Amino acid sequence: MARAIIAGAGVLPQLVMAAGPAEWVALPGASAPDGQSPLIHARYEQLGAVFAALDAAGVREICFAGSASRQRFDGAALDAETRALLPRIEAAQHKGDDALLREVVAIFEGRGFTVRAAHELRPDLLAGDGALHGSAAPGGDAARARAVLAALGPLDVGQAAVAARGQVIGIETLQGTDAMLAFVADTAPGSGGVLVKRPKPGQDLRVDMPAIGPATIHAAAAAGLTGVELAAGRTLLLDREAVIAACRDTGLNLWAVP
Amino acid sequence: MARAIIAGAGVLPQLVMAAGPAEWVALPGASAPDGQSPLIHARYEQLGAVFAALDAAGVREICFAGSASRQRFDGAALDAETRALLPRIEAAQHKGDDALLREVVAIFEGRGFTVRAAHELRPDLLAGDGALHGSAAPGGDAARARAVLAALGPLDVGQAAVAARGQVIGIETLQGTDAMLAFVADTAPGSGGVLVKRPKPGQDLRVDMPAIGPATIHAAAAAGLTGVELAAGRTLLLDREAVIAACRDTGLNLWAVP
Repeated sequence: MARAIIAGAGVLPQLVMAAGPAEWVALPGASAPDGQSPLIHARYEQLGAVFAALDAAGVREICFAGSASRQRFDGAALDAETRALLPRIEAAQHKGDDALLREVVAIFEGRGFTVRAAHELRPDLLAGDGALHGSAAPGGDAARARAVLAALGPLDVGQAAVAARGQVIGIETLQGTDAMLAFVADTAPGSGGVLVKRPKPGQDLRVDMPAIGPATIHAAAAAGLTGVELAAGRTLLLDREAVIAACRDTGLNLWAVP
Repeated sequence: MARAIIAGAGVLPQLVMAAGPAEWVALPGASAPDGQSPLIHARYEQLGAVFAALDAAGVREICFAGSASRQRFDGAALDAETRALLPRIEAAQHKGDDALLREVVAIFEGRGFTVRAAHELRPDLLAGDGALHGSAAPGGDAARARAVLAALGPLDVGQAAVAARGQVIGIETLQGTDAMLAFVADTAPGSGGVLVKRPKPGQDLRVDMPAIGPATIHAAAAAGLTGVELAAGRTLLLDREAVIAACRDTGLNLWAVP
């Protein structure tokens, strides 16, 4: 059963391509795996062309990997298949990112594709339970940030938060984790706080697993934090060696809890 | 019954002093009402001296007005009365800002003072229900931001949030509303979003009423927002004319809902 990676930006597509033979589809902004042309450069307005390219290559199994950028649909560029799907897509979009991604998965499944998660193909990238570098911090700030994420999760908001000395000093919004860390660096330098990053309850982990790379570790250290807590088994390290090396360079503690 | 204003930073102390004859106590960072010396320049470590100064002036009614900055206690400067209160203060402090303020009120009440709210003395400063300038926005973004605040309130986090086109792009943390608006201006310029500012459920409105001044209106406009929603009867305009003038200058809509 031929496989294709639906590839967005970042290093994850390459890491998943390394899991075994696969074709790939380039989403806008995709980083190209070395030395292999994509089946197609996908446009969100032309899902029919994507399905046709996958069918022609005999692909039945797909894996979404990498980050897809939010883009406005160009109504004039819609193909017939996408036009027919538009009401479903727009209805989901109004409910938020989680709903939109779930609907995209449902559309591909409805078209007969089996959707595999990146962490099924690369389970070695998942953060395991316990300390990944240094030691787990003893509690207070991590628990406070976790409580914020638990409260916001049902609203499809907030995959990360920062607490320091019992106070919440950063809550991730649409702009993402790195923008939040830059805010913390600007407005609360040297806080010694803890970043907690966890999936929201509504997130479809097959296509939208939280991920952390060395840039986030460096950004957390630059923001004056002392530790980062991840959700064990529900966060991808992109990749593991680079993340641990960044912790070693910065002295940041990194751990995961269930 | 002589009255004293316990005055922090900002314009509120002056506005409350205008409500009738009153002495005043200067907290660190207090802005001095024109032409009247304070009974005492208070230090947080020396509550005994504050009580003594109030007693000597025959003050039985107090009103906290203006913002008090977070400061570390200097243990060496503690007077006996404050030292005795320290366990209560520290226990409250660990529970967050709301708990700390409630405890401070309880301490003054326990010492025999009647605590009056700023809006009891100046009810004209409260935002009333409905449009204050321009028109109330029709719903979606304000409702989304309000839902975020409702979810976070029980955690004593978040007095303000910004949503634009259904997405949450700013959530207030310890650093305050203006820091959040600067973040939104940097990371999501021209969003056309709505700022919602409301008290947290645990907030003691006698001493910690949300307030908005012209600087926040200008900051919201600079962040590319189109409207600001307040909690009717639970937000102070500091002061009303300056806030409305700022709305007029920037074209921002301002309204309040229950």
